[in-house]
Amino acid sequence: MKNQKNTQKKIKISIEPIGRRILLEGPTNGLDAILDAGIGIKSVCAGKGTCGKCRILIMDKDRKPPNSQEAKILNKSEIDHGVRLACQQIFDRDLKVYIPASSLSEEQKLQVRGEEIEFDIDPPVNKFHLKLIRASLDDLDSDFDRIRNTLKSEYDISVDRIDIETLKIMPGIIRNNSWDITVSVKDREVISIEPGDKTASSYGLAIDLGTTKIAILLVDMVAGETIDSKGIMNPQISFGEDVMSRLNFSLQDQENQKKIKNIVIERINEATKELCSKNNISSSEILEMTLVGNTAMHHLFLGLPVKQLALAPFVPLTNSPIEIKARDIGIELATGAYIYMPPPIAGFVGSDHLAMILGTGIDSKKGNYLGIDIGTNTEIALVSKGKITSVSTASGPAFEGAHIRHGMRAAPGAIEKVLIDQNTFTAEVQTINDKKPIGICGSGILDAVAELLRTGLIDRRGKFNKDNEYLCQDTKGQVQFVLARSNNDNNKNSGKGGKASEKENPETGGASNAGAMMNMQCCDKDISINQKDIVEIQLAKGAMRTGIEILLENAGISFNDIDGIIIAGAFGSYIDPKNVVNIGMFPKVSLEKISQVGNAAGVGARMMLLSKVERKRSEKIAQDTNYLELTVFPSFTDHFVASMQCPEPEDIVLS
Amino acid sequence: MKNQKNTQKKIKISIEPIGRRILLEGPTNGLDAILDAGIGIKSVCAGKGTCGKCRILIMDKDRKPPNSQEAKILNKSEIDHGVRLACQQIFDRDLKVYIPASSLSEEQKLQVRGEEIEFDIDPPVNKFHLKLIRASLDDLDSDFDRIRNTLKSEYDISVDRIDIETLKIMPGIIRNNSWDITVSVKDREVISIEPGDKTASSYGLAIDLGTTKIAILLVDMVAGETIDSKGIMNPQISFGEDVMSRLNFSLQDQENQKKIKNIVIERINEATKELCSKNNISSSEILEMTLVGNTAMHHLFLGLPVKQLALAPFVPLTNSPIEIKARDIGIELATGAYIYMPPPIAGFVGSDHLAMILGTGIDSKKGNYLGIDIGTNTEIALVSKGKITSVSTASGPAFEGAHIRHGMRAAPGAIEKVLIDQNTFTAEVQTINDKKPIGICGSGILDAVAELLRTGLIDRRGKFNKDNEYLCQDTKGQVQFVLARSNNDNNKNSGKGGKASEKENPETGGASNAGAMMNMQCCDKDISINQKDIVEIQLAKGAMRTGIEILLENAGISFNDIDGIIIAGAFGSYIDPKNVVNIGMFPKVSLEKISQVGNAAGVGARMMLLSKVERKRSEKIAQDTNYLELTVFPSFTDHFVASMQCPEPEDIVLS
Repeated sequence: MKNQKNTQKKIKISIEPIGRRILLEGPTNGLDAILDAGIGIKSVCAGKGTCGKCRILIMDKDRKPPNSQEAKILNKSEIDHGVRLACQQIFDRDLKVYIPASSLSEEQKLQVRGEEIEFDIDPPVNKFHLKLIRASLDDLDSDFDRIRNTLKSEYDISVDRIDIETLKIMPGIIRNNSWDITVSVKDREVISIEPGDKTASSYGLAIDLGTTKIAILLVDMVAGETIDSKGIMNPQISFGEDVMSRLNFSLQDQENQKKIKNIVIERINEATKELCSKNNISSSEILEMTLVGNTAMHHLFLGLPVKQLALAPFVPLTNSPIEIKARDIGIELATGAYIYMPPPIAGFVGSDHLAMILGTGIDSKKGNYLGIDIGTNTEIALVSKGKITSVSTASGPAFEGAHIRHGMRAAPGAIEKVLIDQNTFTAEVQTINDKKPIGICGSGILDAVAELLRTGLIDRRGKFNKDNEYLCQDTKGQVQFVLARSNNDNNKNSGKGGKASEKENPETGGASNAGAMMNMQCCDKDISINQKDIVEIQLAKGAMRTGIEILLENAGISFNDIDGIIIAGAFGSYIDPKNVVNIGMFPKVSLEKISQVGNAAGVGARMMLLSKVERKRSEKIAQDTNYLELTVFPSFTDHFVASMQCPEPEDIVLS
Repeated sequence: MKNQKNTQKKIKISIEPIGRRILLEGPTNGLDAILDAGIGIKSVCAGKGTCGKCRILIMDKDRKPPNSQEAKILNKSEIDHGVRLACQQIFDRDLKVYIPASSLSEEQKLQVRGEEIEFDIDPPVNKFHLKLIRASLDDLDSDFDRIRNTLKSEYDISVDRIDIETLKIMPGIIRNNSWDITVSVKDREVISIEPGDKTASSYGLAIDLGTTKIAILLVDMVAGETIDSKGIMNPQISFGEDVMSRLNFSLQDQENQKKIKNIVIERINEATKELCSKNNISSSEILEMTLVGNTAMHHLFLGLPVKQLALAPFVPLTNSPIEIKARDIGIELATGAYIYMPPPIAGFVGSDHLAMILGTGIDSKKGNYLGIDIGTNTEIALVSKGKITSVSTASGPAFEGAHIRHGMRAAPGAIEKVLIDQNTFTAEVQTINDKKPIGICGSGILDAVAELLRTGLIDRRGKFNKDNEYLCQDTKGQVQFVLARSNNDNNKNSGKGGKASEKENPETGGASNAGAMMNMQCCDKDISINQKDIVEIQLAKGAMRTGIEILLENAGISFNDIDGIIIAGAFGSYIDPKNVVNIGMFPKVSLEKISQVGNAAGVGARMMLLSKVERKRSEKIAQDTNYLELTVFPSFTDHFVASMQCPEPEDIVLS
């Protein structure tokens, strides 16, 4: 079990329009790879290639001819356009694939996984198969002594404790299974007992508890592999969309504190059961869980008081790792299973940020690196001269669709990509799952602002160029730019140019929508972007830019010294890096330097689950990371004012 | 706090008719000393000497004259007879005192304390007073980091964990008390937090959980002193008098298992609260608890399954020490307080036996020593050549009054001492609290059988000498020896001789009773002893004697090689050692070699509470103690048959 290295070939797959780049260990089956990446792709024939539901489009021109099964299922036109069945593909090289909405099985677009870095598998819990000698009047050792002595003699493993609840089920399991059992050991403690030989696999959970989303990874700690994963919404959302409103809810009374804790505990229990049952295991087989999250989520999950988190100077209760029996907070795993929660770094820099640093490995990179996890609060880490400094910027929920007139979450029907034609000033949009547009999600808003700026519809202060005839006014006289008309038809894009129409879309319906301006009037139901929306985005990106500038100033380096920018998080992996630069979230930078790594916090949580060394390393990172409070930094206001501006026209990146 | 030695003078006080010998650290106030020994003596004037309720009789002839307060309260006759007020006495030398029933406040006669041996105070929990620096935007350490850093800088104490429930109350206590707090640390974990400086005292509980009785000691872990103690009945008695019936009750269903656990947990919580409130502390200030008990009590207390304990080969679930958060099993102490339970030695040799070995210190004695804890199961340890071997003998509940026709518990009205006149064959009896006799308790039965044998009323096989005219028959024709007539008068003993009448009894009513045989008839209400009762006692003492004989045979030594016999336990300290020898529980031995030490298990539990070294030593004793299963020993039956016999007349010890 020790010193296993992931030695399989790494393959990068870019998946469009999910906007994801996944790193695979291959060669591997296409269907498995996509499912394994947490993308719900349909298939009802268990990969036999008979149901035809897992159609994908291979974007590369040099694709393999269809195999016999594909030839039966697909028509000639599909084959010519590059449509194949995921289950019949072997992913053995870097590839771009497109998954049509008709092949997607999941409504919710949540990212649960990210790119993984290499590390040795060395889990904190290990299993041992024991054949005990039966007790008799001549051999009166207690049950636990018998286990302890056999562990020592057979495996040279020393234990000195047994979990009390495990102790309760122990005599029954021993005697009902002819004294043939498997025990799980953590830190010299027997934490679980199972009948027979169960050492082939050993299950753990890695959880990234976000304010909005919860990513759950089910991991086999023997193989070091992610078996399955699940993204769910954080049900605390019913008590407040953002962190502060949840803290305030919790502060109202003790009942609320319990409520907001229990709702998330129950939801995680449910989702874990679903995930387990889908994989034919029981949640009582899960031996360890790691959980990362921002400091508020961390405190609320543990039922800790949050008053000091909600008031200046916003200090957490603890910066130490917490290891607690799962049952003690109501999480239902194996009898004696523990939850490990790495330390929060500060009141507004949580253990999810720590997990991101671990999961991206930027802490050990030579040179200067920025690690950014975009969210309601955007945490940014600068690694420079071996020193890690982190800040938290109040970027607000605009990128989650909040405070934006037509803003919405990244759900089907949300405009996620926007392109504005420089000549016609008409917008071409792409929606999630190619559904009829019903709103704009974060990446769409970011695109829209960048495109408005590129095409000169707004100036660098973010103000609409009122002379432009393609702008319109709503019934209240507010200036708008319409992205999609409410009476949009389902026609295909009619060759006006733009990204969506360049794709060979194998779908027959629900395609991308483009709304062109026909007159100066628009109705409330048109999906549009107004001046206030643009200011929200400026505030958001300005906050992030301020954080970056202060980090650079504090470290005494300039942006040109930066060797790489790693954008983590679900949102960060859907956005177009070009437009991130074009709205001025960063100074102008070669796009080569930007990498989008997906849910790095989830990757970090998984590493802490699979490796004692990485767990230890994360605690060291937490200790070594210097938290910088932005608002007390002398040049904060100057930076913030400057950061609100958008780039000069010459700084716009075109591709 | 380290290396404190109990250096006060040790004073032995023998208290009659409670039959107790207590070891005091003195000089000390008489009222405090008696209360401190767990004997409920009345006083309503807080020791001012004005209420006169704590009258005692000083048995020694050279007593001090009354002080001015005593002279006011006591009449001349009382003063001449040696009556004094306990609260006005200073116990500064070895002494015999008598406490009349009118001065006793408690009905229940339970022994909670025992003689103590010397050890260094080195408790597992220590308190530290901290003045924290207030958090600010320039000093953003978390609350716990602040505590951790201050502990390190001020006291060079390293901690790395904080109890989760303590973490929850931490921010409130810190902020409501100007950042001035006291923390309690155990094993690098902060387990409790209190406002201000609370380092002057630190409370712990030591509990001896017996099948019948529970002894609770409230201890100050800073001073190393027992503050108060309380003896209560084990409420599980409602589910079965003896261990086996309780195991069977628990085995019937899961509900029963919970019930039998919860009833004792609740009773301990109640009693702890009473004890605390009496001493003006809160049970939330109790930072640690040690609990010893037989293996069945140990398992039932923890809610462990007991099937394997109730069936051959009777193995416990664990022979390891258990350390568990008190709240996890429902015991209400300080937020993060632990319960430490030392390991049981075997199915029928519990941690109370281990605590007895620790509390008497016989493990480290040079020579050959027997340690005996008499109960329903009597555990006997032989220390010989540095090796400890223990057995458990099924002595049965006869000494607790069960299976004896007129048997009863050691409650007021129980005959506890018996003397039979060699000439008149009349019995003189002494009852608990000098109440009218209503039955016989263990020490009374033992005395009765020994006296019947000494006076020749029974032969050495235990058979009644039917020719003796002082025996009588009940209505069913069964031969009896009457100890007390039902129509007894309340007259004083009329000079027939015997112990009771030799005492200067300061009481006016409810004196000792003597019933002489007048004819061959007796009624069912007479308190008498019959042939079956004698057989029960023979079985009980035979079992113990068998255990001793097999221990000796196994060690290859003879009884003459024994250097000392230590009798522990409540019952063991009330019995007359002479009569123990006279019924043949031991071979004939110089009474000098026998010491009665009271509740040695409670003493051991207290040592484990006050000293990490002693706790460690107890675990070593548990490991090193060799359990000998009597029933598989080849000569078991031979020994048992021989042990049923009573001693030859020449082996009777007269004083």
